[in-house]
Amino acid sequence: MTQSRHTKGLKNIESLYGEMGANGLKANAKLAPKFDEYICDFAYGDIYSRQSLSLLQKQIVTISSLITQGCVPKELKMHIHGGLNAGLSEEQILDICVHCLPYVGFPRVTNALETAHQAFEERKQK
Amino acid sequence: MTQSRHTKGLKNIESLYGEMGANGLKANAKLAPKFDEYICDFAYGDIYSRQSLSLLQKQIVTISSLITQGCVPKELKMHIHGGLNAGLSEEQILDICVHCLPYVGFPRVTNALETAHQAFEERKQK
Amino acid sequence: MTQSRHTKGLKNIESLYGEMGANGLKANAKLAPKFDEYICDFAYGDIYSRQSLSLLQKQIVTISSLITQGCVPKELKMHIHGGLNAGLSEEQILDICVHCLPYVGFPRVTNALETAHQAFEERKQK
Amino acid sequence: MTQSRHTKGLKNIESLYGEMGANGLKANAKLAPKFDEYICDFAYGDIYSRQSLSLLQKQIVTISSLITQGCVPKELKMHIHGGLNAGLSEEQILDICVHCLPYVGFPRVTNALETAHQAFEERKQK
Amino acid sequence: MTQSRHTKGLKNIESLYGEMGANGLKANAKLAPKFDEYICDFAYGDIYSRQSLSLLQKQIVTISSLITQGCVPKELKMHIHGGLNAGLSEEQILDICVHCLPYVGFPRVTNALETAHQAFEERKQK
Amino acid sequence: MTQSRHTKGLKNIESLYGEMGANGLKANAKLAPKFDEYICDFAYGDIYSRQSLSLLQKQIVTISSLITQGCVPKELKMHIHGGLNAGLSEEQILDICVHCLPYVGFPRVTNALETAHQAFEERKQK
Repeated sequence: MTQSRHTKGLKNIESLYGEMGANGLKANAKLAPKFDEYICDFAYGDIYSRQSLSLLQKQIVTISSLITQGCVPKELKMHIHGGLNAGLSEEQILDICVHCLPYVGFPRVTNALETAHQAFEERKQK
Repeated sequence: MTQSRHTKGLKNIESLYGEMGANGLKANAKLAPKFDEYICDFAYGDIYSRQSLSLLQKQIVTISSLITQGCVPKELKMHIHGGLNAGLSEEQILDICVHCLPYVGFPRVTNALETAHQAFEERKQK
Repeated sequence: MTQSRHTKGLKNIESLYGEMGANGLKANAKLAPKFDEYICDFAYGDIYSRQSLSLLQKQIVTISSLITQGCVPKELKMHIHGGLNAGLSEEQILDICVHCLPYVGFPRVTNALETAHQAFEERKQK
Repeated sequence: MTQSRHTKGLKNIESLYGEMGANGLKANAKLAPKFDEYICDFAYGDIYSRQSLSLLQKQIVTISSLITQGCVPKELKMHIHGGLNAGLSEEQILDICVHCLPYVGFPRVTNALETAHQAFEERKQK
Repeated sequence: MTQSRHTKGLKNIESLYGEMGANGLKANAKLAPKFDEYICDFAYGDIYSRQSLSLLQKQIVTISSLITQGCVPKELKMHIHGGLNAGLSEEQILDICVHCLPYVGFPRVTNALETAHQAFEERKQK
Repeated sequence: MTQSRHTKGLKNIESLYGEMGANGLKANAKLAPKFDEYICDFAYGDIYSRQSLSLLQKQIVTISSLITQGCVPKELKMHIHGGLNAGLSEEQILDICVHCLPYVGFPRVTNALETAHQAFEERKQK
């Protein structure tokens, strides 16, 4: 509880993405001054450290929000990897996409399902 | 498994909303021909009957999508009730809203939190 | 063809909304300098004067776009009146809403149907 | 009237897309279990079988909704083909895009017009 | 530079909203645990403390983003007050709304202009 | 003041984009009849000629709106060039993106920052 926001953020990033997360942060650091700090300390430090939802449940929230936005496929793919790392099965990832159908319609869900299969494919190739 | 889509839909609506669900369907029937049928048979019959996610997890998906859309507070409130009925605690509902912060920003989350408190208030008054 | 953009705009507004249109323009004039001019000359003068779609078809475009946006119920109601004035039946208005279901999902369509019934109700009271 | 939802859906898909539609369905079947069934039976069986709008008018609704969403160019292109197959002229397709200008602004309409020209180009090459 | 994020945030909130800001924070504190802290420390502490844009320019960014979202009129009104406090004239606020026309269309801009006039009205009544 | 809308539009386009603007207009002319006229006369003639905001401030509005939309990266890149031509520094462009974080979330801002760096790169290569 006395861990700093930054330490908590790094830990949450590592448990979701392993090495890929650290590399992602470095890439974000090049985008704008302190941008990596905001991602690590605010998004993963403050927000991902809240207690009432499990990490798996948090990934369901994140993935559902990104499917709904419809215009951020790269972030969606990253968080699908995070969801699988947090314990969601591939079937569950597909069912999160399909469950959004009555709320966002077919076009966005079709695109999300294609993104999910790209993520699944990437894991096979490792 | 040999239940009709309609029977499955009615059952899923009842387990989420009890009597309120049946009344909601009747109201939807007045909006357009077959509109209640689509809600019951497609949304709650087909989609809510998929197996890999629990009912509680499905409500997390629905609520996260509606928070992200930002313009459907009435539907969000209804599904917050559904989420509480499916076993989510009030704290978890608030944390679903807050977990959306890094993805949709403060304005939509502020509105979602206000909608959540309205739903909590309605339950106290029953 | 030698009519000015402004004259064409006024004519298109009148054929869609009658007197209500002229009053609407006056209200818009108070919102910002030249705002009524842009609505009349650009939206109704330039755009509504294009030839390949009928006025009824143009209203289908407008209504479908506003349903999809989900956050502009007042404008949607106004254009539903315009659609009815252009010859769409109430049944067709409801079917435009319902036809959006597979593309935008139930929450926005539910709200659009409610807006449509409000418009129908307003016409009965005249 | 006694046709099944599935038969109606297949028929509506064929009249809009011919062979391309059947291939599309097969591709959708690979995305998630029953996803092709939902598209065929719900979107094209239930929704596209409603009576008050013509097939051409339904395509105007669909295309206008997808232009407005702005983030689903692949689906937009497919439905522009469907619209041309339903009897819309290329000029009318462009005018649907341009008619959205006052409602969604230039950036989305510019992208939609480019998608339309891609669809026109594909038809020339057949 | 050695000020804490919290102190910086409180200062930025006060310079934009005076007493109204402190009351707003208290209201946000009731919405969810730490929600006021995120607003104060992240939004107003981290983000509003960046150096290259003036406070007036930052308010132009915020207001333009909220106009574009279209579904957060309460937040838009609050930030219009903030913009006026940062030195924007009422004419400039209206011109920010009107400048969004080619990018978001008439319906959202009409609503934003109405929200702006509500804010102007509130200031007269003080 | 007696300049035509078209002349004003051409002048505003030239001051923002130089030669690139004239070429852009020609490309837009091919998309649909009169589409280049609407862009030049309405967007750049009517709207960009309003007086209360400076050209630099107008670009802040435009860029903030396009970041928020999230689905129009090509238009965003063009207007980032316009913003730099109007006097915004690269640091200010990045800070406009980052200032949107509390309003639109990380995914859209990440994409906007990447688009900004693409624009910066293009200018180095000239």
